[in-house]
Amino acid sequence: MNDYPSKTLQDAVEAIGSLPGVGSRSSLRLALHLLRQPKENVRHFAAAIAALADDIHYCENCGMVCDGELCGICADSTRDHSTICVVESVRDVLSIEATGQYGGVYHVLGGIISPIDGVGPSDLTIDRLVERVKEASGAVEVILALSGDVEGETTSFYIYRQIEAFGPRVTTLARGLGFGDDLEYADSLTLGRSLAGRQPFKA
Amino acid sequence: MNDYPSKTLQDAVEAIGSLPGVGSRSSLRLALHLLRQPKENVRHFAAAIAALADDIHYCENCGMVCDGELCGICADSTRDHSTICVVESVRDVLSIEATGQYGGVYHVLGGIISPIDGVGPSDLTIDRLVERVKEASGAVEVILALSGDVEGETTSFYIYRQIEAFGPRVTTLARGLGFGDDLEYADSLTLGRSLAGRQPFKA
Repeated sequence: MNDYPSKTLQDAVEAIGSLPGVGSRSSLRLALHLLRQPKENVRHFAAAIAALADDIHYCENCGMVCDGELCGICADSTRDHSTICVVESVRDVLSIEATGQYGGVYHVLGGIISPIDGVGPSDLTIDRLVERVKEASGAVEVILALSGDVEGETTSFYIYRQIEAFGPRVTTLARGLGFGDDLEYADSLTLGRSLAGRQPFKA
Repeated sequence: MNDYPSKTLQDAVEAIGSLPGVGSRSSLRLALHLLRQPKENVRHFAAAIAALADDIHYCENCGMVCDGELCGICADSTRDHSTICVVESVRDVLSIEATGQYGGVYHVLGGIISPIDGVGPSDLTIDRLVERVKEASGAVEVILALSGDVEGETTSFYIYRQIEAFGPRVTTLARGLGFGDDLEYADSLTLGRSLAGRQPFKA
């Protein structure tokens, strides 16, 4: 007898174990849980996962996941279409939407330029972003909301060079101390950036 | 815009979130992870889960999951077929196999008698167990390896009454202090059982 009494069970355990943060004990536990569920529930579960591969659509305009041709945000005429927030992933859109502070539209790159991982500009939706800025004759603000690491900075710089000729206003997220953070515990890089990016005091 | 930008994504998040111990943030994280994987991997993942509903077999003899008609343990002639360890679930078989201490065969009940959950004797594989004991003309040891709670005790007692007439030797797992446990920290029920079940000292 090998580790698992059934190839079918083993396949399922291995598939579940391939998810990030799910160890071998958890994946066995989850597979055995599914095994105890009504077959109909398990089929429904599997179908919902398969649909991620087969039924998912991306917005033709901004690259966000959606059900039709345009995402709900691009199709919403009450949003400010002259402000485009450029993010790495779908997750970032959800994070920014959750703040309730943003009324513009998005552009989802679908990744970040990273030569080490073999991701170049042509793997991302940068061409479509350039087109959007061009279509607007530059009368847009482009917010580069990418991460602050080397890949994020590189991607931001690359995008900036691609769109600057069309004359958009290009901004980036404020970096500094987190809300409620204590000076004492801030790392010096963050504190330095916070100082350099100081703002007029509003009383 | 509702919580999720796509019904397909939402379905997947809800399906993953239905797994025990997976919260809403984790399920979104996992769904977005799958979304970033090659479509082929996602389809493979979904197929492995669907197979749990459609391709899984149970051993005709003992009720263990397997790929054919008989499980690897029942088909193994080197194992002691006159010792049957009765367990609640597939997981218990894996746990006991992991000890490497057991050379007999199993009987997987597929649950435990629990009137509150609407599980009665007829929902379990007890009839088949009785048949196995009868076929062996009682020349077997039946180890009742069920949990020590009320449902486990009830199920053990019910099974005992069903098989005693055929004359098998019926045993149950030793209950007592865990290996290396300190007396000081043992609960009194466990300590009491440990005392009552004291064993001859082997020097």
